[in-house]
Amino acid sequence: MKRRSLRLGPGGEFDRLRAIFATLDAAGHDLGDDCALLPVGGRTLAISIDLSLEAVHFRTDWLSFREIGWRATAAALSDLAAEGAEPIGVLVSLGLPGNGRGRGKGRPDPATEIMTGVGAAAQRVGARVLGGDLVRSTRYLVDVCVLGLAARPVRRSGARPGDGVWVTGRLGGAGLALAALRAGRGARGGRGGRLAPALRRRFARPVPRIAAGRWLARRGARAMIDISDGLAGDAGHLAAASGVGIAIELECVPCWPGVTPRAAARSGEEYELLVAMPRSFGTAGARAFRRATGLPLTRIGACTAGRGLGITDGGRLITPPPGFDHFPAR
Amino acid sequence: MKRRSLRLGPGGEFDRLRAIFATLDAAGHDLGDDCALLPVGGRTLAISIDLSLEAVHFRTDWLSFREIGWRATAAALSDLAAEGAEPIGVLVSLGLPGNGRGRGKGRPDPATEIMTGVGAAAQRVGARVLGGDLVRSTRYLVDVCVLGLAARPVRRSGARPGDGVWVTGRLGGAGLALAALRAGRGARGGRGGRLAPALRRRFARPVPRIAAGRWLARRGARAMIDISDGLAGDAGHLAAASGVGIAIELECVPCWPGVTPRAAARSGEEYELLVAMPRSFGTAGARAFRRATGLPLTRIGACTAGRGLGITDGGRLITPPPGFDHFPAR
Repeated sequence: MKRRSLRLGPGGEFDRLRAIFATLDAAGHDLGDDCALLPVGGRTLAISIDLSLEAVHFRTDWLSFREIGWRATAAALSDLAAEGAEPIGVLVSLGLPGNGRGRGKGRPDPATEIMTGVGAAAQRVGARVLGGDLVRSTRYLVDVCVLGLAARPVRRSGARPGDGVWVTGRLGGAGLALAALRAGRGARGGRGGRLAPALRRRFARPVPRIAAGRWLARRGARAMIDISDGLAGDAGHLAAASGVGIAIELECVPCWPGVTPRAAARSGEEYELLVAMPRSFGTAGARAFRRATGLPLTRIGACTAGRGLGITDGGRLITPPPGFDHFPAR
Repeated sequence: MKRRSLRLGPGGEFDRLRAIFATLDAAGHDLGDDCALLPVGGRTLAISIDLSLEAVHFRTDWLSFREIGWRATAAALSDLAAEGAEPIGVLVSLGLPGNGRGRGKGRPDPATEIMTGVGAAAQRVGARVLGGDLVRSTRYLVDVCVLGLAARPVRRSGARPGDGVWVTGRLGGAGLALAALRAGRGARGGRGGRLAPALRRRFARPVPRIAAGRWLARRGARAMIDISDGLAGDAGHLAAASGVGIAIELECVPCWPGVTPRAAARSGEEYELLVAMPRSFGTAGARAFRRATGLPLTRIGACTAGRGLGITDGGRLITPPPGFDHFPAR
């Protein structure tokens, strides 16, 4: 089950899902992780589904249709990364407005463009487009189901007190890009300045951390989650699932240029990995990770014997920034 | 790839998808059947995805939320039936209006109700709910990805001249129910008369023909498709995929009580199976099928050395009724 769908802290969406899971007791199972795991012929299949909606997850004036397809697919593949799985393929349901919106004269068909982006994102990590569905809709929608194989699946629940808490890459770029787009900068044909190419790429074409997730799984990762709700929110989910506390030092968080650690900890849809590694994993491990993947791996805190999430800034405890919730309690 | 997504006759949707498949040449494969097939650890996984949208596939004043969940899931599972596959599990993306519509005081939560229907339809055929996603949407949407195992997958492409063409169950009930609902009869709390319970059940809680599909696969089915676009449309798809002609005698089509053969041949979303069996399969086989599944199996025609679909009524060739197309050419 997609993380968004199983909020382990308080929140409207979690309350709603909890009721659903109660009714599914007989048929459902194992609904609390990035991927569902299914044994098939001696292998372990990892599967996840991720729905992207126009006006909720993307806007057609911010992204090209290819980017919309890429981003929706990368978001789904990121769940495989967080499981330490190797992608095999994707299935995609597309909803397309039937009124010709976006289908200007001489401009390519949005459905083709979206699927081209889907195919490119899948190919980037060695996956294929296996199938799909196409339906007329009032707004664009892209729902991506991903399948992979996990030789050694990494759940959210395996962290133990004393484990180090590490994060891949640098955080805050997605939030910075979003703020610029909301302010009217960087939109396709929009007014004002442009997003720096690297920042735009970070937002429009995120790269799921597949190789990183598999490397960390092989090196004994105890628990892993991808950062889609924001570092604070996702660290809270991992702590709750593992039954440990997590202490994060804000000044250790690796930040995108121009982003403060507080903003970096709040930024969602980063698609970096947050991972609990055994205490024995140290700077030599991080150097080996960088050689293997080209990415930094930074220790930002540790798991504790307590419960919940504590974030310190210069030694002082701060209030964790809220995560994103599609269904806030009313 | 869902049949709706790969129209093998002429039509706007097919033209659109053809362009998409051309761009996916490198990453995509095998996109012309009810299910994608994926070898995993010596087994063959069958996978399909099926998107149901409010106002396109269902209306909340026609169906309860449980029925909406059931029907969307049964439609997706029907693709596994047409492959001769055994269901394992489903993943579901839900889109839910955030304005509280449908969430009257004291009434159960629509998300819970939809997922209860999903779980019941899955359990009915031995599948589990493996995961899902939940997003705020302007309209209700239910996208169901189904996974199964196919010991002997039956494609659409294996029919040969001389094969008999058979259909499970009786056709036309879904169309009859839809017409009554459109006329304002039978809606939940609607004006006018009520649908007969069997007819309502046929529309609201269709049963995917899993056991029938597996039986037919074991007994040597050459090609199979489920009837979702209507008998005429789906027979055309099967003929095109197999490179054969199909001749159907309208007076042989098994009809729902009160439905004419012409209306039965036009009725979509029936979720019965249309299957090409070797010439040696005859009435004894159909009797054995009925004993095994409780369903009638009726020979309605044969595959020929020609191309395309020919339907005769009392020996006279008629124009096949059109299938349903989400994206008619403009």
